[in-house]
Amino acid sequence: VVQKNSSEFSRIAGIARLLDQGRGRGVIVGIGDDAAVLRAQPGRLVWTTDSSVQDVHFRCDILSMQDIGWRSYHAAVSDIAAMGAKALAALSALELPVALPDRSVYAIVEGQASAAKWLKCPLVGGNLSRADKIAINTSVLGCVDAPILRSKAQVGDELWLIGPVGMAAAGLGCLLREGPRLRGHAVECCVEAFRRPMALLRQGKGLVGRANSAIDISDGLAGDAAHIAESSRVAVELDERQLSASLPDELLTVAKKLRRTALSFALYGGEDYSLLATGPKVKRPRGAVCIGRIIKGKGVWLVRSDGAREALGRGFEHFGN
Amino acid sequence: VVQKNSSEFSRIAGIARLLDQGRGRGVIVGIGDDAAVLRAQPGRLVWTTDSSVQDVHFRCDILSMQDIGWRSYHAAVSDIAAMGAKALAALSALELPVALPDRSVYAIVEGQASAAKWLKCPLVGGNLSRADKIAINTSVLGCVDAPILRSKAQVGDELWLIGPVGMAAAGLGCLLREGPRLRGHAVECCVEAFRRPMALLRQGKGLVGRANSAIDISDGLAGDAAHIAESSRVAVELDERQLSASLPDELLTVAKKLRRTALSFALYGGEDYSLLATGPKVKRPRGAVCIGRIIKGKGVWLVRSDGAREALGRGFEHFGN
Repeated sequence: VVQKNSSEFSRIAGIARLLDQGRGRGVIVGIGDDAAVLRAQPGRLVWTTDSSVQDVHFRCDILSMQDIGWRSYHAAVSDIAAMGAKALAALSALELPVALPDRSVYAIVEGQASAAKWLKCPLVGGNLSRADKIAINTSVLGCVDAPILRSKAQVGDELWLIGPVGMAAAGLGCLLREGPRLRGHAVECCVEAFRRPMALLRQGKGLVGRANSAIDISDGLAGDAAHIAESSRVAVELDERQLSASLPDELLTVAKKLRRTALSFALYGGEDYSLLATGPKVKRPRGAVCIGRIIKGKGVWLVRSDGAREALGRGFEHFGN
Repeated sequence: VVQKNSSEFSRIAGIARLLDQGRGRGVIVGIGDDAAVLRAQPGRLVWTTDSSVQDVHFRCDILSMQDIGWRSYHAAVSDIAAMGAKALAALSALELPVALPDRSVYAIVEGQASAAKWLKCPLVGGNLSRADKIAINTSVLGCVDAPILRSKAQVGDELWLIGPVGMAAAGLGCLLREGPRLRGHAVECCVEAFRRPMALLRQGKGLVGRANSAIDISDGLAGDAAHIAESSRVAVELDERQLSASLPDELLTVAKKLRRTALSFALYGGEDYSLLATGPKVKRPRGAVCIGRIIKGKGVWLVRSDGAREALGRGFEHFGN
């Protein structure tokens, strides 16, 4: 017996219930009209959109539907965190295969709803569409008096890491590894970092008035450092010793189990959604670790422990050949 | 020889050039940072997202890539028009098959760029992702002091149609018809309505202070009238005589060629993105045609020319069985 799905309209009603109709601070009309209506905000509006596509950004065999909803939401809100802004609300356009049962759809929305609650950023509307594969497109609106841009890094700035890097990629490595499943606390930590990343809104706001530039680390440290370098027309120098010292023990443990270096996960593993920022030493906020500096020039450089300098390639590209 | 695509980063640069980096009134940072930055606006923010998915919302064999970009943009902005709002800016998350050549990607963006220019609603950022099929997710932000909701229709209101209905569906019928291609002015008009719909921003703004409720017609007149009825807890009565009198000659001509009734295209054909509104007779704006009224009750009713009343079914549903 093929389970019948509810119609589009009753599905929207079910989704709206899970999301408390999109209610929240500053929300005048949530789910159910042509558009959501929000109270206007002072300062600047910051606004982003992010896609999470099945078999590109996630696989359904290693993540629960709730994880998929949670991750997509945090990934999108993370761009708002990187601007130093407050997240006001989000919209979600879901693409859903016809065969996807109601319980899976609602589980995705439950993951989004938990993330919305955690981040105090209500999901106020969206769109449903058929498609061959699941895709979640999340648009997030935020506000801040003076957004932090990726293009304002200054020569002489320190390079700050806020939050862990490489953990999510190591967690993914554990999940994809053939053979018996790896176990232990360190593995659980990395898998959790992959399944349940966190947008660092509070830490992002803490950068305002301190950082000259910031970006969230979605493509990997090397790739996102390259974005700062290119936008700001400077070079980024990563200090291997400082970076290595900042890596969590759990990452070192898991990297060893996977026969990879922790540094490679840190440099090229994406999807931790930690923040990378630059600013003067005297303004370094608590919780930020200095892992390098901004110098004149181009590109991203790794200064090895022995003093050797090495140009770094970029992280993940979607259409590279 | 397989044409190599440019990398994600050079593609973004090419797209940004086509969109003049997302510049526009009120845009402080366009394309290129984690998020776009906009000047804050007074009044209310209205905010929507809409998806246009290959083989669900469009087929590449009957539309050009430019058409696909244009249509997706107008469809999304149309929700802002239906709130009576000004469109401030849009974001676009593109899902693109790896095999889709650069020229097709740029053609989609050209269509979006033309629409953005036409609507004075700049495309200020977005996201690129791989996917199996093309999908365009457009999020649009607008502002207005007092948005018009679909939930405020009042018993006694007239039902107003602003813009044509059924033309786009008739145009699609012409394009999908087997046998020799239909020709003539009426056919061209309908095909153009399908290929190049228009979001009625000006007309939407003209409803402010006049209409009690409004919606854009994306699912078909019957389906969108049902949304007003349900949200406002009223019944909508469509007057066949008034509706038929309002239908353009071109629709009558094409319906005849396709051996369908013009009324069926008008009631069930979507994607014209005209506006349906309700309000008191004395406030009916110029350009709005009265095609029925709001009464107590539930659902959507068609009053036939002979006075018979008939309950109408809904339009297109995405997940119906």
